[in-house]
Amino acid sequence: MKKISLLGATGSIGTQTIDILLNHKEEFSLEAMSVGKNIPLARKIITDLSPNLVSTMEKEDADILQSEFPHVSFTYGDNGITEVAVYEKTDIVVNGVMGSVGLKPTLQAIEANKTIALANKETLVTAGHLVMNAAKKQGVEVIPVDSEHSAIFQALQGENRKNIERIILTASGGSFRDRTRAELQNVSVEEALNHPNWSMGAKITIDSATMMNKGLEVIEAHWLFDLPYEQIDVLLHRESIIHSMVEFHDSSIIAQLGSPDMRVPILYALTYPDRIPLSARQRLNLAEIGKLHFQEMDMERYRCLKLAFEAGKAGGSFPTVLNAANEAAVAAFLEGRITFLQIENMVEQALERHSGVMNPSLSEIEEIDRETREFVFQSL
Amino acid sequence: MKKISLLGATGSIGTQTIDILLNHKEEFSLEAMSVGKNIPLARKIITDLSPNLVSTMEKEDADILQSEFPHVSFTYGDNGITEVAVYEKTDIVVNGVMGSVGLKPTLQAIEANKTIALANKETLVTAGHLVMNAAKKQGVEVIPVDSEHSAIFQALQGENRKNIERIILTASGGSFRDRTRAELQNVSVEEALNHPNWSMGAKITIDSATMMNKGLEVIEAHWLFDLPYEQIDVLLHRESIIHSMVEFHDSSIIAQLGSPDMRVPILYALTYPDRIPLSARQRLNLAEIGKLHFQEMDMERYRCLKLAFEAGKAGGSFPTVLNAANEAAVAAFLEGRITFLQIENMVEQALERHSGVMNPSLSEIEEIDRETREFVFQSL
Repeated sequence: MKKISLLGATGSIGTQTIDILLNHKEEFSLEAMSVGKNIPLARKIITDLSPNLVSTMEKEDADILQSEFPHVSFTYGDNGITEVAVYEKTDIVVNGVMGSVGLKPTLQAIEANKTIALANKETLVTAGHLVMNAAKKQGVEVIPVDSEHSAIFQALQGENRKNIERIILTASGGSFRDRTRAELQNVSVEEALNHPNWSMGAKITIDSATMMNKGLEVIEAHWLFDLPYEQIDVLLHRESIIHSMVEFHDSSIIAQLGSPDMRVPILYALTYPDRIPLSARQRLNLAEIGKLHFQEMDMERYRCLKLAFEAGKAGGSFPTVLNAANEAAVAAFLEGRITFLQIENMVEQALERHSGVMNPSLSEIEEIDRETREFVFQSL
Repeated sequence: MKKISLLGATGSIGTQTIDILLNHKEEFSLEAMSVGKNIPLARKIITDLSPNLVSTMEKEDADILQSEFPHVSFTYGDNGITEVAVYEKTDIVVNGVMGSVGLKPTLQAIEANKTIALANKETLVTAGHLVMNAAKKQGVEVIPVDSEHSAIFQALQGENRKNIERIILTASGGSFRDRTRAELQNVSVEEALNHPNWSMGAKITIDSATMMNKGLEVIEAHWLFDLPYEQIDVLLHRESIIHSMVEFHDSSIIAQLGSPDMRVPILYALTYPDRIPLSARQRLNLAEIGKLHFQEMDMERYRCLKLAFEAGKAGGSFPTVLNAANEAAVAAFLEGRITFLQIENMVEQALERHSGVMNPSLSEIEEIDRETREFVFQSL
């Protein structure tokens, strides 16, 4: 039985992980989890899966739950998440929190020799050098949970990475893929949140519409698979059925396909290198789908993707600025304070004013992250 | 440097293997080869690649070549092919001969502990039980060269075969995929030989049009991957870009894709488990292709495929009858002696009159093969 710590149990990745754990009780046990502010859901998970340690965002939530569940240990805040990440009995840490807050617990979990199932892309975007070096040093496996990176990770099983010609990340194109740039001027938050294929959290759905999501994935792939940006391509594929591909030097391409179901890459990360049957799985029926479409990626149409490639190639602290500016700008868009196209403008401005720190430390990253958000907020 | 014996060097698979060997002289050496009746081409290969041993079909061709190349050993006929297959210095035997003649040398090569790169599908169709048992006993690897089986073989790297839900062989539909059964009544040999995607030999091109080629591949897959027929599906995919797929219990599908270039699976069989860059490779450009199509396989439209599944499930000597009747009927069609739809009728009649031998020996297989061909010729 594999013992799991789950960071962000009430979020999008978290609830799908919980669904897996509920249906595979013989294979996995939930040892520890962190939750956000959804206490009713936290209560349900505690009842269903009896974790030993739970961390809430707020102290008062921890106190309330403690009175209800006297046999469970409660903690809270950023230190609480780290306690969950390094929980002694845990084998695998599923990091499903959103945003930069996922970084520190990942590093601590690696130090504690936990296998990392990583859904928090900001961890690698802002501190890929720190995370992958630490993982290498500790001999710890970082298994991607993103459907695209999981596809590449799966396609690379049994292969020698020196034979990679390039990896091809597929992109659905997001909610606005059929609109021109001109038509993006006045799109609403509601329209942006309406993703054609995947049901995801709000931030990542907006990032799909701007293609920043794919940009962050490009940087993540750079670190996960130790590849230069010249060997990372993005292809528009509206059905999101081919989740990504690896092309080898012999021109052979290995791809991973499936229905859009995040439980598949989550389960794979938990069972890797083995697989187990997924409960209530939705089998892919290609004959029913009939056609798969592919299209060149237009970097001018999707400026956030271009900015991400540029920030990635510039390296050092630039991806931190890209990510922090984007998080702040998307939050502002979701609050109705800026327009959709202003997101990319703000990210671009933040990158332009940044002078760059090579090989930044964790505290430098945190400082640059903070500074960048402040810059965006002041520009509003 | 890997040392190669090539059976059928002047055939379709043979000439593409030669192309690889010419372009990768540092990686491979041609130690021995068998050729058919194309002596000018044999002469050229001998000059270019200096094999030590060459077997011709006819004794007089061996004599002529011997006088021209005094430092090369020549032999001929069925025994000659076997000499090439078991040639002492050889590491890998590429079996690219057409038809049942490929069986005996494969078994002998396995006995001699050679790795088998198998393009001759009749070997597994008629004697899969003998071949795979011998390979298992000797610890010899049988690596498929067919694009479909190579795709599955590649997709299975790093995977545990117990996790397979099913394999999905893709089929282009052949030259007549857009015609109804009624429209197949009076098709000509020339029309049948015009395959939309692949440039192949005549027999296999006709087999693609009748879908018997896929049927033989289904039986081959049964033996190669040790799977019951219930776990083998066929999907129409007109572009032949996805060469085949494996679905696992977790609903994840791993596929291998590429341009239609038989050199890719041939090279993979030679370099497995490694890969090397293919010279003059044609990289797949999915954006340029734009769309991939998929369609349910209609077993009534393609009766040969249905017959192959039935013969495979019946087991024993039935696949030998299927294959021999088909070879004889296709030869008769190519000679203009029967119509296109009579091919499937003859195969069906041959299967119906056969009573079946379970676990047939090599000599029983040869006898049944002979009898079946005779039956077809007498029915003409």
